[in-house]
Amino acid sequence: MHILSVDQFEQSWLEQLFNRADELREMDHDKKGRQDLAALHVGKQLCSLFYEPSTRTRLSFETAAVKLGMGVVSTENAREFSSAAKGETIEDTVKVLNEYHYDAIVLRHHETGAARQAADVSRSPIINAGDGKGEHPTQALLDMYTIYRKFGRLDNLTVIMGGDLANGRTVRSLSKLLSRGKGNLLIFVSIPELQIGADIKEVLTANKTEFREVSNLEEVAALADVVYWTRLQKERLDPGVKITHNFVIDGAVLPLLKQDMIIMHPLPRVDEITTEVDDDPRAQYFEQAGNGLYVRMALIDALVTT
Amino acid sequence: MHILSVDQFEQSWLEQLFNRADELREMDHDKKGRQDLAALHVGKQLCSLFYEPSTRTRLSFETAAVKLGMGVVSTENAREFSSAAKGETIEDTVKVLNEYHYDAIVLRHHETGAARQAADVSRSPIINAGDGKGEHPTQALLDMYTIYRKFGRLDNLTVIMGGDLANGRTVRSLSKLLSRGKGNLLIFVSIPELQIGADIKEVLTANKTEFREVSNLEEVAALADVVYWTRLQKERLDPGVKITHNFVIDGAVLPLLKQDMIIMHPLPRVDEITTEVDDDPRAQYFEQAGNGLYVRMALIDALVTT
Amino acid sequence: MHILSVDQFEQSWLEQLFNRADELREMDHDKKGRQDLAALHVGKQLCSLFYEPSTRTRLSFETAAVKLGMGVVSTENAREFSSAAKGETIEDTVKVLNEYHYDAIVLRHHETGAARQAADVSRSPIINAGDGKGEHPTQALLDMYTIYRKFGRLDNLTVIMGGDLANGRTVRSLSKLLSRGKGNLLIFVSIPELQIGADIKEVLTANKTEFREVSNLEEVAALADVVYWTRLQKERLDPGVKITHNFVIDGAVLPLLKQDMIIMHPLPRVDEITTEVDDDPRAQYFEQAGNGLYVRMALIDALVTT
Repeated sequence: MHILSVDQFEQSWLEQLFNRADELREMDHDKKGRQDLAALHVGKQLCSLFYEPSTRTRLSFETAAVKLGMGVVSTENAREFSSAAKGETIEDTVKVLNEYHYDAIVLRHHETGAARQAADVSRSPIINAGDGKGEHPTQALLDMYTIYRKFGRLDNLTVIMGGDLANGRTVRSLSKLLSRGKGNLLIFVSIPELQIGADIKEVLTANKTEFREVSNLEEVAALADVVYWTRLQKERLDPGVKITHNFVIDGAVLPLLKQDMIIMHPLPRVDEITTEVDDDPRAQYFEQAGNGLYVRMALIDALVTT
Repeated sequence: MHILSVDQFEQSWLEQLFNRADELREMDHDKKGRQDLAALHVGKQLCSLFYEPSTRTRLSFETAAVKLGMGVVSTENAREFSSAAKGETIEDTVKVLNEYHYDAIVLRHHETGAARQAADVSRSPIINAGDGKGEHPTQALLDMYTIYRKFGRLDNLTVIMGGDLANGRTVRSLSKLLSRGKGNLLIFVSIPELQIGADIKEVLTANKTEFREVSNLEEVAALADVVYWTRLQKERLDPGVKITHNFVIDGAVLPLLKQDMIIMHPLPRVDEITTEVDDDPRAQYFEQAGNGLYVRMALIDALVTT
Repeated sequence: MHILSVDQFEQSWLEQLFNRADELREMDHDKKGRQDLAALHVGKQLCSLFYEPSTRTRLSFETAAVKLGMGVVSTENAREFSSAAKGETIEDTVKVLNEYHYDAIVLRHHETGAARQAADVSRSPIINAGDGKGEHPTQALLDMYTIYRKFGRLDNLTVIMGGDLANGRTVRSLSKLLSRGKGNLLIFVSIPELQIGADIKEVLTANKTEFREVSNLEEVAALADVVYWTRLQKERLDPGVKITHNFVIDGAVLPLLKQDMIIMHPLPRVDEITTEVDDDPRAQYFEQAGNGLYVRMALIDALVTT
């Protein structure tokens, strides 16, 4: 099995994966469990094949594999693989790596569709760790896992997403996944220029998922089970674009939110969530990043277990 | 023992190495064997010391060591080792690394002769993974191993080598090694400007190895047990040089070849072998790259076993 | 516990650490011991977080962890961690890594004080592997360990330090540590422009450690238990500065030194110690680098053992 796109994730498969992630986390937080983990996949190897650096994603995958007892080989300049000849195809590179019998290959590529091309010729499972403007499915997994850990379900949730929704890959993937659940309400908070794309709205409509578009967090804040916040980069906008509302979550926003909700962010954050929010128990963005480790462990575990 | 040059390989040592590579391959393709491999050299360490990136070679060596249960530490920018002082010698660097008691050091260097300099002061075995325009002996090993796996012998073979023979390091090393066998016939296919060097021809003559130089693959294709093809880069030639024959192996060439032969290429390939050839069972270039893994495993295994 | 500064090292803690380093070295030099080492910290992980490359330091730490059986994940371009958003704080990065439950994080940073900032928010032990012009405490540890291995004590020693004392981080740290011992005499050999800083002299005075400043090695050479030599880079000096004495240790200096002493250098060296000195048994700079491995093993062992 290859992991290429959020489109391939069934709800039941997700829940199974998240439960396994919980188990692996528990083992990782216990001295004896750590040693058991390290014995789990001895003799298996993961290849980290990054055509562009993405330190955060790479460390997360490699840590996952190492904790599972696997051997890891790694490159962040896989483009060099083909430099001498100015253009080895991704297919040829993967065919070479197949001969090394890796148990999984984590692929990060600068071109959209590269993961699919790789998977088409690969005997080893390919995990797409981001391909250009395409997919980054394990980011979506960790977002869903974070929600699942908090609420124990992936439906009947009100999720506010804010910031640059037009370009945000994480927000787009999460919206698609949430539309698989029943009774979810998605509220998109942005300026008109950066609102969620028409393609996503079509998916939501097709899946009968209710959604609203607003420009002001304050008017909807009280509804949220989840606020998923991203950066709205003013410096990228045309000078004429007027930002009428506040797109920063700070101490003044906290009282507007329910007690039993969570604030998420894909990180890194700059100033769109102020550090005064960090100590609030509802702020879960660092835990969310940690969930990325455990969900990747569960994913690798599933792929290499035969 | 250091591995510096193809000149040091005895025929019997090669056969022993190749048989060990077969054994390790078999273990690697079996779940239980994998675990046994991973227990083989626990507590031993390999240092990957690359003064210039060569991702393909580095991953192959590191995967080999990891599969054997060794610890690996790695750098691709070893030049930085000496940058602060603008010029630590390779001898000093190796003397420092000797103090770390590595079981093997894989050295890639941009200067010819660097591997020999390193070996002269090293207690840890040095494996030359390419030193400038000098040697790259493990590439030659994997080429020989690929031939040995197919034919079970390293003599009485007709080997056609084509492309840029004047500059091709792999072709030059392979020619030298094949001249050690008895009854081999080497046929060099290129344009006069890129034919095999006089120094290699002297070695062949000294070793009483028959060879021919031709400019057209088609006229000799039917003789080959092995076709070893490389790229002839037209863009590097003087504009006046005329290329009279086809230097591409494509579907039209396949019918000219024997059934019981193999097509090899050091990879990466660009268009000098078309992808329509890939599915022909005689096309063995991807398997050849995989052989690089197993022959390096056998080599490391031999060096670190005491 | 975090390892941030030489100021935190008590004499008794140092001696305990050095004795443990001796034990680990002995294990590393024995086949069975190697395997026992590799089983020591199975299931524990070290993260090598370098915001700038420092291959020498990184390899030393990673080799230490690997020999102890730990898993290692590594980056040399941690700045990229925050590049997308132009400025994730070190605190946020560390908070993410905390979620991965590393047993230790080795941090190299380009900004003075970064290690302290990291430690302030870190649950995992932070080991400062150099922060800008700040501290590099494990370099000081290996220097002290080298002296301790030779003399079995850290007091009643005459230590000559020479070269660029004004800017040398190693010399400054070593001076501070030696001032903790009783009866040490420090002799600083340099030109006036590059003599040891007033801040260090204040520490020595406060600790009642005797010191002298001279400009000529020859006049004091016979006194030394230790000569710690560094490079005096003439090309960095103003053209008007006159260098009146020889700042090179060569064959002519050796007869001036006691038989029972050691010559140290933090490496890399260029020409401030000539290679003819290397074979003299008093030359201990390569062994000193090796001591860096074992003292780091002892340090990691102490931090991850709970």
